[in-house]
Amino acid sequence: MNYRMELSEYLSKNKQRIFDELFSLIAIPSVSAKSEHKPDMQKCAKRWQELLKQLGMDRVEVMPTEGNPVVFAEKRVGEAVPTVLIYGHYDVMPVEPLELWNTNPFEAVVKDGKIWARGADDDKGQSLMHAKAVEYLLSDNTLPCNVKFILEGEEEIGSGSLEAFCQANKELLKADVILVSDTSMLGSDMPSITTGLRGLAYWQVEVTGPCRDLHSGIFGGAVANPINELCKLIASMTDEQGRIAVPGFYDDVENVSPDERAAMAQIPFDEEAYKQSLKIEQVQGEKGYSTLERTGIRPTFDVCGIWGGYTGEGAKTVLPSKAYAKLSCRLVPHQDHVQIGLLVKKHLESIAPKSITIDVTPIHGGDSYVCPVDMPWYKAAEAGYTKAFGKKPLPVRRGGSIPVIATFEKVLGIKTVLMGFGLESNAIHSPNENFPVDLYFKGITAIVEFYREVAAQTPVR
Amino acid sequence: MNYRMELSEYLSKNKQRIFDELFSLIAIPSVSAKSEHKPDMQKCAKRWQELLKQLGMDRVEVMPTEGNPVVFAEKRVGEAVPTVLIYGHYDVMPVEPLELWNTNPFEAVVKDGKIWARGADDDKGQSLMHAKAVEYLLSDNTLPCNVKFILEGEEEIGSGSLEAFCQANKELLKADVILVSDTSMLGSDMPSITTGLRGLAYWQVEVTGPCRDLHSGIFGGAVANPINELCKLIASMTDEQGRIAVPGFYDDVENVSPDERAAMAQIPFDEEAYKQSLKIEQVQGEKGYSTLERTGIRPTFDVCGIWGGYTGEGAKTVLPSKAYAKLSCRLVPHQDHVQIGLLVKKHLESIAPKSITIDVTPIHGGDSYVCPVDMPWYKAAEAGYTKAFGKKPLPVRRGGSIPVIATFEKVLGIKTVLMGFGLESNAIHSPNENFPVDLYFKGITAIVEFYREVAAQTPVR
Repeated sequence: MNYRMELSEYLSKNKQRIFDELFSLIAIPSVSAKSEHKPDMQKCAKRWQELLKQLGMDRVEVMPTEGNPVVFAEKRVGEAVPTVLIYGHYDVMPVEPLELWNTNPFEAVVKDGKIWARGADDDKGQSLMHAKAVEYLLSDNTLPCNVKFILEGEEEIGSGSLEAFCQANKELLKADVILVSDTSMLGSDMPSITTGLRGLAYWQVEVTGPCRDLHSGIFGGAVANPINELCKLIASMTDEQGRIAVPGFYDDVENVSPDERAAMAQIPFDEEAYKQSLKIEQVQGEKGYSTLERTGIRPTFDVCGIWGGYTGEGAKTVLPSKAYAKLSCRLVPHQDHVQIGLLVKKHLESIAPKSITIDVTPIHGGDSYVCPVDMPWYKAAEAGYTKAFGKKPLPVRRGGSIPVIATFEKVLGIKTVLMGFGLESNAIHSPNENFPVDLYFKGITAIVEFYREVAAQTPVR
Repeated sequence: MNYRMELSEYLSKNKQRIFDELFSLIAIPSVSAKSEHKPDMQKCAKRWQELLKQLGMDRVEVMPTEGNPVVFAEKRVGEAVPTVLIYGHYDVMPVEPLELWNTNPFEAVVKDGKIWARGADDDKGQSLMHAKAVEYLLSDNTLPCNVKFILEGEEEIGSGSLEAFCQANKELLKADVILVSDTSMLGSDMPSITTGLRGLAYWQVEVTGPCRDLHSGIFGGAVANPINELCKLIASMTDEQGRIAVPGFYDDVENVSPDERAAMAQIPFDEEAYKQSLKIEQVQGEKGYSTLERTGIRPTFDVCGIWGGYTGEGAKTVLPSKAYAKLSCRLVPHQDHVQIGLLVKKHLESIAPKSITIDVTPIHGGDSYVCPVDMPWYKAAEAGYTKAFGKKPLPVRRGGSIPVIATFEKVLGIKTVLMGFGLESNAIHSPNENFPVDLYFKGITAIVEFYREVAAQTPVR
């Protein structure tokens, strides 16, 4: 039996090495959205493979998919113990606009108590926390579970290859629970665990009026303008109450219990500070719901992009032939993204006037997810956060989507606990992404404490 | 006295030279909307100066303005004769989208009996007709009037400098009538003269939501999306009847008499062919008005351009900070474009929700114009068309705007006759702009016959 080093001592002694390891992952620009970075995806997967081998995993493989490879690793400690599957992703978002970064996004810098780099949080930083927690427990000989890692390289572009990978590797991925650290907390001194994620449906719409761009003087008033018509269609998608005016849209929406809504109302939330940080005078959304409810438990309709006609300098008097938009809905339990995709498509097609043609193409989607807060795995996570932060974490439904979580449940039949340690101020997907150093080590601590809580209920080896 | 060559012989002998001259103007990309073409504006003005000198004008000057220069030319044939002022413009519309052109827009090609190029019609082609008609009459020694030319370089961007130029040069521009060829006829075998033009008001709108682009999952549903809100504002600008829903908008609109509406109903118009040529299933516009009325005597609301958020490939889930649109209204007698500009601005500002900010900037405008059909100058034009086309031209109110025509009346006190020879199929402002060759020479003939009609009533030299 090894000398048992305290976790805090272990982290402090190994701090620089842990940083160096994280920075070596960050240094590989694994931007999945850009095909020029294809070789970097391989490189980053290989680097993860090395790191997982070094910390003592039994089996570590870089496995091919239709797209970017998946890194799989496994450590077995016994037959009678449960298995934890850790999911993360090694791909990152594009870094543009580069001029807004204060430092090189791929050269991590520690300054003002934070790590600054693309991927410092999402998700190289958060994924590595799990590796370092497992490393400590192995060094300490106290890992109470079998552990598997699965790290994908396409999360930021929709996890296109992962469902097929799961279907083809059900046995390999067998586990009792999935842990994911890819979400954020309410604040560094307000720990929280994301217990719900919204789903997503996303369409591209093309509206065609006349077969060519027309002079708005000669034809204007008699020929339908596709931009005007697209705007009318978009405007008609929501009603005066801020509800989505598509028949059947709310049919399957989860009716959140008064108890859970009462609990949500207890979450500390400073609406004035929220408005000030966004420089808006008023929040706006579905009548009868609070801001946290609007982003947590209610579906949305957002136009993510729109374009058509003349968009250059000055005044061109054109009645354009085409107009386009990218429409999206965040979905909530138990809305099915495929069905909603078709519902909205059919609705838009049915209300479009005959003076135009409309083409609605669903281009992306995923279902929502809810983690039951009475599940022992959730309780263990709760205990882990409580030990690390000195406060019981609040369960919070968040508005974002990680479609793969719903896929895990559907394909593998495994529930996920979202042990995220990010902050909204970490600026993921934005310039100057960062992660506070103290939070980084508190996160590792919370994960270690999660396993200790599991150990308290499970015979080890 | 020179040998008197018949006009038809003259045109046929000089056909290639006339083409070469037109093509030399077309070859200069005088796109006024784009500041990169600033040097081309100078170049094109200089080229016009050369051409007008060559044909025998006495005085030809490139005169500076606040913006692009004006080309002025004058030929005096006597004191007792009337003076005709010819107005045209040497600037052209942008050529985008370039991929839809079958040929280089700035390299004129004659094919299938048409000249294909940007400016072949609007307005290099049509302006040059006047120069060539005057050239013939001078060679023939039968020009019965003093003639002045004024060619501006900002018509396609609102003639911003022309009013001040007119104010400063009232004496120089003194004339009995203005001729403008910048409109189209009902058909190549259905000559018509435009007797009315609509006015124009044009705005750029900027809607700002949050101060930065947001993740649509984390914030969507609680923070107003500027694209959604812009679409709602645009949709609310028109009602179920296709009328513009801005209080006061119709207050000054001319009530066209039942007699004139009855006359308009007699204009041959094939709506099926119109729809087929535009590949639309239905026309659309203000209830209670025909297509010709909708484009001729009624105001409109058209969005000429819109943009915001993510417009690239695939699905980016962004709640953008900004959305933009270019809005336009065609106006009719007696709407004042400045007043309408302010009315719409105020209206949009008043209905915008507090969750966003809106900035509405009027960027272009002009008033409508009506030409009295009993004016002798109109009668002379009518006679010119009748000789050239073998049919009396129909007087037609058209939907386009040439704001400067109203300015001429206001500042110089001179009426304009709109001797346009274009066709709707000439695709002005669109890819593959063109002008039928036979129509080009018929147009020159009609102008020459106009002067002969004037001569019949006026002592020459």
